[in-house]
Amino acid sequence: MSEEVEGVGLRVGVVGTGYGGTELVRLLTSHPHVDELHLYSESQAGKGLGEVYAAWRDADLPLLPLEALEETELDVLFLATPHGASRELVTRWIGRPQVIVDLSGDFRFRDGAVYERFYRMPAAPRSLLEEAVYGLAEFAPPELSRARLVANPGCFPTAALLALLPLAKAGLLRPGSAIVDAKTGVSGAGRSPSLATHFSEVNENVRPYNVFVHRHGAEIEVYLGAGPVSFVPHLVPMTRGILVTAYGELVEPMTTEDLFELYRHTYAGRPFVRLLRPGTYPETKAVQGSNFVDIGLIATADGRKAVVMAAIDNLVKGAAGQAVQNMNLRFGLPETAGLVGRPLYP
Amino acid sequence: MSEEVEGVGLRVGVVGTGYGGTELVRLLTSHPHVDELHLYSESQAGKGLGEVYAAWRDADLPLLPLEALEETELDVLFLATPHGASRELVTRWIGRPQVIVDLSGDFRFRDGAVYERFYRMPAAPRSLLEEAVYGLAEFAPPELSRARLVANPGCFPTAALLALLPLAKAGLLRPGSAIVDAKTGVSGAGRSPSLATHFSEVNENVRPYNVFVHRHGAEIEVYLGAGPVSFVPHLVPMTRGILVTAYGELVEPMTTEDLFELYRHTYAGRPFVRLLRPGTYPETKAVQGSNFVDIGLIATADGRKAVVMAAIDNLVKGAAGQAVQNMNLRFGLPETAGLVGRPLYP
Amino acid sequence: MSEEVEGVGLRVGVVGTGYGGTELVRLLTSHPHVDELHLYSESQAGKGLGEVYAAWRDADLPLLPLEALEETELDVLFLATPHGASRELVTRWIGRPQVIVDLSGDFRFRDGAVYERFYRMPAAPRSLLEEAVYGLAEFAPPELSRARLVANPGCFPTAALLALLPLAKAGLLRPGSAIVDAKTGVSGAGRSPSLATHFSEVNENVRPYNVFVHRHGAEIEVYLGAGPVSFVPHLVPMTRGILVTAYGELVEPMTTEDLFELYRHTYAGRPFVRLLRPGTYPETKAVQGSNFVDIGLIATADGRKAVVMAAIDNLVKGAAGQAVQNMNLRFGLPETAGLVGRPLYP
Amino acid sequence: MSEEVEGVGLRVGVVGTGYGGTELVRLLTSHPHVDELHLYSESQAGKGLGEVYAAWRDADLPLLPLEALEETELDVLFLATPHGASRELVTRWIGRPQVIVDLSGDFRFRDGAVYERFYRMPAAPRSLLEEAVYGLAEFAPPELSRARLVANPGCFPTAALLALLPLAKAGLLRPGSAIVDAKTGVSGAGRSPSLATHFSEVNENVRPYNVFVHRHGAEIEVYLGAGPVSFVPHLVPMTRGILVTAYGELVEPMTTEDLFELYRHTYAGRPFVRLLRPGTYPETKAVQGSNFVDIGLIATADGRKAVVMAAIDNLVKGAAGQAVQNMNLRFGLPETAGLVGRPLYP
Repeated sequence: MSEEVEGVGLRVGVVGTGYGGTELVRLLTSHPHVDELHLYSESQAGKGLGEVYAAWRDADLPLLPLEALEETELDVLFLATPHGASRELVTRWIGRPQVIVDLSGDFRFRDGAVYERFYRMPAAPRSLLEEAVYGLAEFAPPELSRARLVANPGCFPTAALLALLPLAKAGLLRPGSAIVDAKTGVSGAGRSPSLATHFSEVNENVRPYNVFVHRHGAEIEVYLGAGPVSFVPHLVPMTRGILVTAYGELVEPMTTEDLFELYRHTYAGRPFVRLLRPGTYPETKAVQGSNFVDIGLIATADGRKAVVMAAIDNLVKGAAGQAVQNMNLRFGLPETAGLVGRPLYP
Repeated sequence: MSEEVEGVGLRVGVVGTGYGGTELVRLLTSHPHVDELHLYSESQAGKGLGEVYAAWRDADLPLLPLEALEETELDVLFLATPHGASRELVTRWIGRPQVIVDLSGDFRFRDGAVYERFYRMPAAPRSLLEEAVYGLAEFAPPELSRARLVANPGCFPTAALLALLPLAKAGLLRPGSAIVDAKTGVSGAGRSPSLATHFSEVNENVRPYNVFVHRHGAEIEVYLGAGPVSFVPHLVPMTRGILVTAYGELVEPMTTEDLFELYRHTYAGRPFVRLLRPGTYPETKAVQGSNFVDIGLIATADGRKAVVMAAIDNLVKGAAGQAVQNMNLRFGLPETAGLVGRPLYP
Repeated sequence: MSEEVEGVGLRVGVVGTGYGGTELVRLLTSHPHVDELHLYSESQAGKGLGEVYAAWRDADLPLLPLEALEETELDVLFLATPHGASRELVTRWIGRPQVIVDLSGDFRFRDGAVYERFYRMPAAPRSLLEEAVYGLAEFAPPELSRARLVANPGCFPTAALLALLPLAKAGLLRPGSAIVDAKTGVSGAGRSPSLATHFSEVNENVRPYNVFVHRHGAEIEVYLGAGPVSFVPHLVPMTRGILVTAYGELVEPMTTEDLFELYRHTYAGRPFVRLLRPGTYPETKAVQGSNFVDIGLIATADGRKAVVMAAIDNLVKGAAGQAVQNMNLRFGLPETAGLVGRPLYP
Repeated sequence: MSEEVEGVGLRVGVVGTGYGGTELVRLLTSHPHVDELHLYSESQAGKGLGEVYAAWRDADLPLLPLEALEETELDVLFLATPHGASRELVTRWIGRPQVIVDLSGDFRFRDGAVYERFYRMPAAPRSLLEEAVYGLAEFAPPELSRARLVANPGCFPTAALLALLPLAKAGLLRPGSAIVDAKTGVSGAGRSPSLATHFSEVNENVRPYNVFVHRHGAEIEVYLGAGPVSFVPHLVPMTRGILVTAYGELVEPMTTEDLFELYRHTYAGRPFVRLLRPGTYPETKAVQGSNFVDIGLIATADGRKAVVMAAIDNLVKGAAGQAVQNMNLRFGLPETAGLVGRPLYP
């Protein structure tokens, strides 16, 4: 019952051994159209992936130094590298693989000034920023299919935009009214230890952080296109998952049923969007390990406000899964290739 | 360095052995003005508390049947009983102890019709509903000091009202604009097992529930007095703690500093309110096991919206602690008597 | 890079919608040799699996009544049913599908009297008990390949036996000396809510339970064949995973290196056993969602005792995964077919 | 109902702002015989404790530099400092306060060579090692009452020794037979972030670590006095709590009832030891935040082995609480002074 298509065999590289990079490896090693997979790491080169992650202890996956990129022909290069590092790698390697899919924030802003304000680092060259295609897969432009550079969206923006874009694109979201209250698991902070991700500090704790100043708030604003967004992320004591609860004022009164129909129409045929019937709501555990986004919605009794909730696995649909989805779309493969694994539940 | 005051010695009863009732026992057994403590339980009568909770296995605390209420003179009777049960107990025992503090929802609504809509159960007699004093301690009316019946607020309303009432009372919150996005630990659901509180379902999961239809939403609306409130509670994988993130539109533009001054003034001298300096935000772990409410706030850049965050321990400030605080206020004791225990951290 | 083999297409049925049954569905829906998959449930018949588990909300997987077993030709029938129920189903359906793989304890004891002592329920007919093949896959007898009935091992016995059998089979484990100290996630208790699995009771808690009287202790003893075993299971606050720490006295002194060589030899070529080099130890997260068993070991300085640690995912190698592995072995398929999914980490 | 005794008022200092030091502050601020409390920190001097821990944000507790120790007369000085640092502080300040209670490992070994082997650091001067009194409170020698230096036991040794010493002291534990399988929460690792305590790595994970080479194994061996001990600690995903499951061979056959009587006699009158009736077992949550140790036990059917389980809060009975208990014993105060707070449950 597995999916298989004839003929396409991609040569793929992944740079980075953080959670995002390793999640890419998990997905790509069972992808039916990946023929070669090469891993690269600056800090861990020379080791095998199994020395970095016990989960991979049986695997024969050497981590090559970055210079080895010189030697191999690649169709796709995924960069699961920190911002700054991605900028340098893209600047150097753009055009060599058919496409680079970058998971950092370096190419998400067409306007380098916005980037520099939020990332406090020099932006990438303007020509690259303009060339990059923002890979929110369900709303990706036709250019994705021939892109040399894909900016994979942030985890919060993926959930927030999938929750609100149907309203915004229909002109139904009052500008400036959007509130995005997000709850995230800790893996979104990566694998580098810090007090903020120290078990004893995070466990049995919920806390807001970077209120109004999180980089992803700017990214949401730019791509939602409906004025300022009040973005408040919260850290919750779990490893994976993001739940976004988005609130917005409607330009004209709508019922919950109206909302449902709008979303149903918008996401018709999109294999990873699971739209929930009115009265049911998404939860992160139901998408754990999968590329699904579960969306639930409700309007206030007077029809003037909408609440839209979206749940994703931050490392899959919010990072590596969507990156693979973008690769599939880029090469004309079935959108779900390599992404058919079911959620792990419980 | 412990606190002690001369002269008052109260005879106290507690009905109920759920998490709220047991938390009352924890607080009352170290309360300097409690001379006698009697526990009552319908379902567990005849046992000792140590047979119901391993944490109390050393304690000599018999659980008496409800009829035993007949035999003892009490100054205070706490009801940590389900709604419905509280209504019956109050109806029967009102006036016998000097004051009954009820932790259920039975006496929180002056308007029985609202109660009946949300609790789907007959309301208490109108005279009792009108007599009951709503014990949100920081905003309690003078009548509290001679009340025969105190309705202890719900856990979510405690956090939400402490977050928003300063704005609402000052006429600065635009009616109908309030959004309360709440995140709660699982102990708020009590000790009765259910699929919704089953470990394997809750762990590694965040989910909204009872969106717009939670009873506490109605309670918040009634006591906030600023029109409809959009209340969305979420269950997060921790045992104790509520974090409320409240959003509201301001009637006139305010800066974060303006907000801070308003709250500082409102809560001046209130021992359990810890107002955080702009740029810092509350977290549930910092109040764990204590009666504190930590409040942080911020205004949007244009000064038109405020976000106020409040963190409490749902079983303490959200239930048993506030009940003890109400007892203290009722009898003219120091407000902090029996409530000086520090948060348990980490 | 996915695995595919030509020619075999199995018709498979699964009875039961608990965690074990649903995990079977997760594995079987991506199994390359499963052509048909039919689900059966007594309590949930008429619904779809997506109504029982939000994780499956997109799936078209109807739950058929048990009587529907009459109508379909099946090659394999998995019973993820409670003990007692399995006995009845096997008694009725044995011989109709080519093989029944039962995940309950009903057919694990050849001696019905042992079963009855520990399960307090009548044992299955003796002929069936004698016919059943105990499916500890790495040690399965040749008869497995033609079995009509496979008794899939319990989760604790799987981990404990894989940890200790190499020693016991080599005659190196002193009879009566084995101690199995096991730590399990909560999903092993199934999906039925109880106080023992209530989030607020389990979270931030470690506790031993059923000390010396757990059914799996008897199962370990029978199949280890090295005298009485002191089995102490502990519940830890996580969903998936079992870690067994097994202690035993050695008949003759051995070094850690000796142990390592013995285990390396015993498990040579077994695809799911990952033997760790001396000085490294298994952890449950490294096998999460996978069929791996990770084994680490050490001898005491005097060579007289061994400690062997084994980590599995209780729902995969400890239940559904091993059941699929048994199906693969039964039909001569590659042992890893349908089980190549990587651990979900973190 | 709080406890109070007349007349003694101690001047107390605490060095260190890790979890242990802060837990000391929590206990000492409500201790009825502490008149003055001064906090010292090398790294955080100049701040207030509320800047280091949000839980203390309301408190007026300045952190003084170590030199300030010069200026104040203290009766007791607690050192919640890393090993090495404690050695230096004791060497410098011994004799100035009436007693120093050191929570590090620096003075737990009378034999400096053992210390140096396990701590890989020079041992303290021999005279100090010989002067130090090992403060396992329930077994403390008479010298404790006039000690100038108390070595507070490690968290694992506290639980393991309380579990096994009654047997060992009675000569009933076969030398060399003891196995200590311990499960600990993460707070035992302190507040310094590391990959091993990173939330995403620890959550949903159980893993053994430092098998046979943990420093606390040596400490257990020395004070148990029954030959080599096989000590295997495990990290479990919770913040507080240690559960020790200790196995040992009995010199002569005993029943569970015999064991119970032995322990009952040994611990008669000890206020923090809660001995559980046969058939019930300890759990960490039942002691959370308290100084209790809960002990359960069972003998094998043949009476040749015993299993004794002990649960403590590692930061209380395993560190700060026992340190306060030692202070109480040192000054002839009631053993429970300042330690009457009930467990926080759930």
